[in-house]
Amino acid sequence: MTRFASFDALRAACLDLPEGHAGIAEDVSAREATLTKPPGSLGRLEEAVAWLGHWQGRNPPTLDRVEIMVFAGNHGVTAQGVSAYPSEVTAQMVANFANGGAAINQLAGVVGAELRVVALSLEIPTADFTKSPAMTETEFLEAVEAGYEDVSPDADLIVLGEMGIGNTSAAAALSGALFGGGARFAGTGTGVDDQGLARKRSAIETALVHHADVLGDPLRAAAALGGRELAAILGACLAARHRRIPVLIDGIVSTAAVAPLKALRADALDHTLTGHVSAEAGHRLLLQDLGMEPLLDLGMRLGEGSGAAVAVLLLRAALACHTGMATFEEARVSDKPA
Amino acid sequence: MTRFASFDALRAACLDLPEGHAGIAEDVSAREATLTKPPGSLGRLEEAVAWLGHWQGRNPPTLDRVEIMVFAGNHGVTAQGVSAYPSEVTAQMVANFANGGAAINQLAGVVGAELRVVALSLEIPTADFTKSPAMTETEFLEAVEAGYEDVSPDADLIVLGEMGIGNTSAAAALSGALFGGGARFAGTGTGVDDQGLARKRSAIETALVHHADVLGDPLRAAAALGGRELAAILGACLAARHRRIPVLIDGIVSTAAVAPLKALRADALDHTLTGHVSAEAGHRLLLQDLGMEPLLDLGMRLGEGSGAAVAVLLLRAALACHTGMATFEEARVSDKPA
Repeated sequence: MTRFASFDALRAACLDLPEGHAGIAEDVSAREATLTKPPGSLGRLEEAVAWLGHWQGRNPPTLDRVEIMVFAGNHGVTAQGVSAYPSEVTAQMVANFANGGAAINQLAGVVGAELRVVALSLEIPTADFTKSPAMTETEFLEAVEAGYEDVSPDADLIVLGEMGIGNTSAAAALSGALFGGGARFAGTGTGVDDQGLARKRSAIETALVHHADVLGDPLRAAAALGGRELAAILGACLAARHRRIPVLIDGIVSTAAVAPLKALRADALDHTLTGHVSAEAGHRLLLQDLGMEPLLDLGMRLGEGSGAAVAVLLLRAALACHTGMATFEEARVSDKPA
Repeated sequence: MTRFASFDALRAACLDLPEGHAGIAEDVSAREATLTKPPGSLGRLEEAVAWLGHWQGRNPPTLDRVEIMVFAGNHGVTAQGVSAYPSEVTAQMVANFANGGAAINQLAGVVGAELRVVALSLEIPTADFTKSPAMTETEFLEAVEAGYEDVSPDADLIVLGEMGIGNTSAAAALSGALFGGGARFAGTGTGVDDQGLARKRSAIETALVHHADVLGDPLRAAAALGGRELAAILGACLAARHRRIPVLIDGIVSTAAVAPLKALRADALDHTLTGHVSAEAGHRLLLQDLGMEPLLDLGMRLGEGSGAAVAVLLLRAALACHTGMATFEEARVSDKPA
């Protein structure tokens, strides 16, 4: 575990990013223009194919190996009564993933993806961030590295999801640190009641004051306010960028987890698309601050990578049109003006 | 061809509608509440399963037989220079459907649906509605009946799409007739230029004045301003309701085609969901007037049932979660408050 020996080493890796493959998006668009449909009429589906090709470096792009990575962690801030469920549910749900019983198992099957679940020291919750940093520098870097190393070099597409009771509190706190406005990103998470939401807001406000001295550094903020699964998602997203693998981001936790990358470098998330906007209140705000346009808006708020997994279906539909449609010439359809 | 012998006979059929199956949606929701996720956290996916069950009359609902019906027609109003493509493209695209080269062919494959294309007297365009009714009563009723009779009684779900050069003009005119505001539903369709759009608006305004005396009757308005493929979609949507088959509506043409049903009876479209909102400018306005919430918003504007076909994927994802997930009890996951 020595890839990232310090915040500084990780920061350097976050600033050293490859671009996509020049010319491929243009090749994709050139073919799209020959297909038997009005130009641009498949909208974001066409754009998504160009994006896949741009990062994969091939036209047509492929979706033969889609990996859904679900990282799980536990959170000391649950001691503040911020969640509707007890911390034990994190490990119980990891067992449910292993047994094939969760939503993401069914979705992985429907969308033709491999599901990989990585439980991160569930027996050692992060510290309660209202009182001390959630993670030490070492703990944070180890989690980042775990995510980084888990990315398959030959994946065509990666979906980044999570499970962790208490982690919408961490996501909201980290979002507040990066974009300001205190506890405005806090929502009801798995379904906390009004009193629980008040405790959640209070915990976030307390934490933002307590850790004010590190909030100007996105990585230190992620260590102080985030969680192991958020750190691992950051690491996986970074690894995907270094390997030019396209990524689908899921809900507020997944988005908050990668937000420090964008805070460090404005184009750091260009290899990602946002699968959906969650019903969790803060997610829409966070996406607006990040300038990210979700593909789906279905009122989902489950996590596990579920919204982004559903969005894989859109990419499959888009790719099928791109590769399977006849051209105007092949089909002898007039593409001349009336 | 005697099912609908007159406007009055069709109107009577449009007013005589069955409800869904009592109790099934509640059964679906009761199972959803036992599954290992926070209550309601799959959002519209959960609602969609309940809707499918309500109309199919079974829990779990099934999606074994999904039919995409694409109706095609030609339009005399193209003489007014309202489209970017010549009328010949309608028949050319029908041939493309037959040869498997169109977007909807690829999408039907991806979503696991059967594609049925019904060309309606392409050699006889409707009359130019700026000068006379697009269809006579007989022509209109024959097209309605063609759509009605084409619905498979044992379909689990029907997607209603269309192809017809000039038919966004018909859809916009009919929408203006039903909801007022003249040519506000007109958009660029397959990609008409500014001058063409001006001609399109002018043709619609002219038609709304010319046919003012019938616009208070939704069916006569549909005959005067619509087209054969729109009439067939109305017929198919009505047949589906009579057989309690759920329906996915596509873009502005598909939506305008069924709008007269809602104008006749407020709950007439309860067995439908709107697959997507099109980039065609008037569609969002029309959905607002109809109170319909699209599942997808991807900037698509192709027609052919393409947006609704993509939405079938959402229903498959929803159903997989509903049928495949473990319950809290099965998975031994705590569903108690923290």
